[in-house]
Amino acid sequence: MSAAGNRKFHLNAFLMNAGHHDAAWRHPRTQPERATDLTYFQELARTAERGRLDSLFLADGLALWGKVRHNVLGGFEPITLLSALATVTEHIGLIATVSTTYNEPFHVARKFASLDHISGGRAGWNIVTSGSLDEARNFGLDEHLEHGLRYARAREFVEVATKLWDSWEDDAPIIDRAGGIYADTSRIRQIGHVGEFFRVQGPLNVQRSPQGYPLLVQAGSSEDGKEFAAQYAEAVFTAQQTLADGQTFYKDLKSRLARYGRAPEEVKILPGICPIIGATEARARELEEELTQLQVPAYGLAQLSSMVGVDLTGLPLDGPLPDLPDERDINGNKSRFTLVAELARRDGLNLRQLIARLGGGRGHRVFAGTPEQVADQLEEWFTQDAADGFNIMPPFLPGGLTDFVDLVVPILQRRGLFRTEYTGRTLRDHYGLPRPTNRLAIQA
Amino acid sequence: MSAAGNRKFHLNAFLMNAGHHDAAWRHPRTQPERATDLTYFQELARTAERGRLDSLFLADGLALWGKVRHNVLGGFEPITLLSALATVTEHIGLIATVSTTYNEPFHVARKFASLDHISGGRAGWNIVTSGSLDEARNFGLDEHLEHGLRYARAREFVEVATKLWDSWEDDAPIIDRAGGIYADTSRIRQIGHVGEFFRVQGPLNVQRSPQGYPLLVQAGSSEDGKEFAAQYAEAVFTAQQTLADGQTFYKDLKSRLARYGRAPEEVKILPGICPIIGATEARARELEEELTQLQVPAYGLAQLSSMVGVDLTGLPLDGPLPDLPDERDINGNKSRFTLVAELARRDGLNLRQLIARLGGGRGHRVFAGTPEQVADQLEEWFTQDAADGFNIMPPFLPGGLTDFVDLVVPILQRRGLFRTEYTGRTLRDHYGLPRPTNRLAIQA
Repeated sequence: MSAAGNRKFHLNAFLMNAGHHDAAWRHPRTQPERATDLTYFQELARTAERGRLDSLFLADGLALWGKVRHNVLGGFEPITLLSALATVTEHIGLIATVSTTYNEPFHVARKFASLDHISGGRAGWNIVTSGSLDEARNFGLDEHLEHGLRYARAREFVEVATKLWDSWEDDAPIIDRAGGIYADTSRIRQIGHVGEFFRVQGPLNVQRSPQGYPLLVQAGSSEDGKEFAAQYAEAVFTAQQTLADGQTFYKDLKSRLARYGRAPEEVKILPGICPIIGATEARARELEEELTQLQVPAYGLAQLSSMVGVDLTGLPLDGPLPDLPDERDINGNKSRFTLVAELARRDGLNLRQLIARLGGGRGHRVFAGTPEQVADQLEEWFTQDAADGFNIMPPFLPGGLTDFVDLVVPILQRRGLFRTEYTGRTLRDHYGLPRPTNRLAIQA
Repeated sequence: MSAAGNRKFHLNAFLMNAGHHDAAWRHPRTQPERATDLTYFQELARTAERGRLDSLFLADGLALWGKVRHNVLGGFEPITLLSALATVTEHIGLIATVSTTYNEPFHVARKFASLDHISGGRAGWNIVTSGSLDEARNFGLDEHLEHGLRYARAREFVEVATKLWDSWEDDAPIIDRAGGIYADTSRIRQIGHVGEFFRVQGPLNVQRSPQGYPLLVQAGSSEDGKEFAAQYAEAVFTAQQTLADGQTFYKDLKSRLARYGRAPEEVKILPGICPIIGATEARARELEEELTQLQVPAYGLAQLSSMVGVDLTGLPLDGPLPDLPDERDINGNKSRFTLVAELARRDGLNLRQLIARLGGGRGHRVFAGTPEQVADQLEEWFTQDAADGFNIMPPFLPGGLTDFVDLVVPILQRRGLFRTEYTGRTLRDHYGLPRPTNRLAIQA
């Protein structure tokens, strides 16, 4: 075992169409025509499970980011896709991103309970508040909800969802055929929620699921986001460019837990990393350069414009990032804004260089190297208290995931960092997190 | 071929936990403990596909019908379940019930498009408007929406959904790697819908799916329901007790199509039937009586109260149904109300007899007989223009479905009524219905 003592090391496969690099779909090792081919995702899921990874992770948005045609557009809705992937896997967790801003808690609680039953306890919910005007406009609104209001709604949303999951006690179904009593309905409760955003009577129309609640995941790293994570999240995905930044974030978030009566190990912090893997360091850098060469500048500029909240269209690629607004004026992804602004300033990058740096991970760390070097990086961040594990973002798929599973995972296993077999059946088992107590049953 | 000429005969398996009889879960041939066991539904799906049935059908409600504990409570959410069943079947259609009253069109259009991709073109949407106050109270409302308003919302909902499905032309993805162009974005359109109930910008974030639209199914038989079906539905599920009633409904609905520019064969009418199958007629009646004996009167009374909109609790079982309100004062399932009232009046049933008659199919026709007799009934309704096929509601599961598939289907096949192999891949293929033209592409 490593210097990290009893801490366990976690790995998720963050799946994204042709891969995370924005030019992946143009690379010969990808299959961009399979964006709506279920067998493509089944193969990826089986590869990740072969590597004994903790979970699959799917991002989501409620609008087509459709003004630019230079990357894969459209694809599956995450919960339907994960329900289908549940049947071709046995152990790996299934984490879907679902927004609290444009949904109703009853539907969301129900779908995750259903997915948790379908998968035998492998569901996870990445709770997001949505960040774009295009999403608002698909749901009858002219304006995107303000950042603080989105988080207020998210808090109440999660409260309602957890009450709904607790509305059935585990042993409510008694199935007494002779007596004609299917369930002890005194153990199935209305929740009678009346709040600022929601009124929900309950109970849920799904039995309490194998995990009780799906694993609660959160991915915003703004002040609001970190505080929300400290209160509710059990796993946090975050973008951190350097070990020092990672350590600062890790310490910050873990230190917030006490005020909610939680211990540091109750939240797993999982920075994203886009590993570009080569047999030699030179080959890895060559592969990175191949991908950079395939980038379409107009696409990179549009992505960057969206991240920094300024339209950069038409600016010279060899010039600098122009002056940016303050983070407090950003109503989208605040933490990503700050990360990008700092990256450009710190490394003195012009627009072309910045687009190249962001191409692999949209702000997440990109690291090119041999399997040993990638494993070294992961071990360093883990042992140096910058991470409890990682959200692996393969630059291209399926090859980038296969390489990680076949070349990097065995090194991590040999070093005693990562599991060689699954020891539990549920996603909570993999993360070493307990099944939540039923709060409504306790009060009764 | 039968006297029905070129008309095709259709069969759906309407799956419901332990079966459709309200006492099925108490019968030794059922497995009520498997209500949230995916493998149970996988086995049912494979059985139905072995019988070459057109589709699986799942009902739905957005509240726990939880005041009574004498039947199976809770279970899977339909779209997640069908996504999981898609992977263990190859041909059979997958029809999920989803309400237009407590949902947003963007989510619903997206989930069905995703399910249609996942299943290779086998998705169907049973469009309902929801009928209960308990559902309203799970979505922030104190009152259930009025019947006419629900249908007005449903019409606009379906308009928005079909626009979203048409927001991508089929050939929008061009995947030109060398040129760096993934999609021809001139063939992906905003829909800019502004209506009475919804404002939705679009486009959808899912590529146009194999079927274009999922099969559109409808199951309300009120005036509003029939008119809605005539305008939008491609298959109609209905409860009809007698051949004459079935013929009247069939003729009525088909005659409404012309005013929407539709031909009679564009809508398939599929009455529900709960077949109680025995090797002999006596054995079938014995089985029916076994199920009746297992009924819990309090459950039957509660179900009946809900159907007729009057609280019958405590009334003597050997007494008659009391005076009922007019159909126009019913804000739930109007057509079911009328059916039940007429059934009691016509056959002079007391409450106990009425509960027994409704136990098998909640108002759908129950028929006990030999496999030949069941096949005769189906053939008669089909050839006598009361049905284009049937929604098969096995009284108990899995045995009731297995019996139907193994004993009745071969008879229908020998008579040349029913397919012996699937000849198409999509649900629309099975129903002999065309893939919808893209209306937005035509206008361009």
